[in-house]
Amino acid sequence: MKRHFEQEIEKLNTSLIKMGSASENAVGKSTTALHENSTELAQKVIDSDEAINSFEIEIDNAIIDLLALQQPVAVDLRFILAAQKINNDLERIGDHAVNIAESVIALSRLQQKELLFELPHMAAVAKSMLRKALDGFIHQDATLGKGVLQEDDTIDDLNRKMVEKVVGHMKLHPDAIEVGLELIRVSRNLERIADLATNIAEEVIFIAQATVVKHHAQEKHS
Amino acid sequence: MKRHFEQEIEKLNTSLIKMGSASENAVGKSTTALHENSTELAQKVIDSDEAINSFEIEIDNAIIDLLALQQPVAVDLRFILAAQKINNDLERIGDHAVNIAESVIALSRLQQKELLFELPHMAAVAKSMLRKALDGFIHQDATLGKGVLQEDDTIDDLNRKMVEKVVGHMKLHPDAIEVGLELIRVSRNLERIADLATNIAEEVIFIAQATVVKHHAQEKHS
Repeated sequence: MKRHFEQEIEKLNTSLIKMGSASENAVGKSTTALHENSTELAQKVIDSDEAINSFEIEIDNAIIDLLALQQPVAVDLRFILAAQKINNDLERIGDHAVNIAESVIALSRLQQKELLFELPHMAAVAKSMLRKALDGFIHQDATLGKGVLQEDDTIDDLNRKMVEKVVGHMKLHPDAIEVGLELIRVSRNLERIADLATNIAEEVIFIAQATVVKHHAQEKHS
Repeated sequence: MKRHFEQEIEKLNTSLIKMGSASENAVGKSTTALHENSTELAQKVIDSDEAINSFEIEIDNAIIDLLALQQPVAVDLRFILAAQKINNDLERIGDHAVNIAESVIALSRLQQKELLFELPHMAAVAKSMLRKALDGFIHQDATLGKGVLQEDDTIDDLNRKMVEKVVGHMKLHPDAIEVGLELIRVSRNLERIADLATNIAEEVIFIAQATVVKHHAQEKHS
């Protein structure tokens, strides 16, 4: 029974790593689509979102089964509950990648190709945060998670700067208001991806601290 | 033991109803602040968010304890997992109320008091959706939940109309671009509140269907 349970936990871990890779892939493609002004690549991000959503539900059901049939406690329970949150965060990251992809298509329709202001920098920071958060999860390494938390301010600053620049541009060019709104939309979605990467990093730290939690739980039961 | 467990579930239920009331209160105050252009009321929403966040963590910890110490199965497990999601949705609704309150303060600073376009209508629909979702939870009534799902399209339409009108206004008045951006921000936050009310309604339906789930679970075990 115990061996079976460990296999189930291992399977959940592997599923989450795959889910992380799918979400990261969507973010990567959507930002590349933005840089290269590729509606084709943007469409691919939109088309692949259904698979990410199904995968989230599949993992969520596996978690419910694990809780119901194995009734885990202490460290295992904490891991499973953190996994549930990370799963949900990754699905939301996929949604934000879709939003960016939709903006790429809208910007192309508006014949806007070059104005990106802070977006390339923001995209690089958001992707690096997500990478570190996922690496932290894969290697169960809380130090990587802590690095992510520090980068969150950078993204907020860049977002503020971005909005300022876009507003300045819109004032000078009222015919570029729709373009400006789409650029701000991309900026906001990158900021949200960074926030969700921060959430994941916090969960990774939470999992890494589970030995402490286990200790307390044992004291409680004794 | 069983009686103790039922008391714990009842306590969780009561906590969630209180949490729902706190979030609904924040939404109500933030939209009233918008209509009345009251920065004082907006500030109250911002100040009370910390209490909502603490309450969310408290409920989340109670849920973890319930799972760890009582190891619930079937219907109880489904209820607890749905409670966990509703708790998180309510906390996020509180965040969106804060965003609206911040926009009220920004709009006041920009000396904009009258332009609201579709916002009063959107606020009314979003509040009605949240009310129905919470009523559905309180009375464990799936039909109320289903009513919420139907209203989600209304909000999306209003949001689209709102953005169109604001863009038209900004084009004619480039000096009102900051105002326009804040109005769009409020619109988006109302739309997100409606989305989260929809999530809650879905969870309420999920809980109401738990008897079916229980039936299957019993079959599985037999």
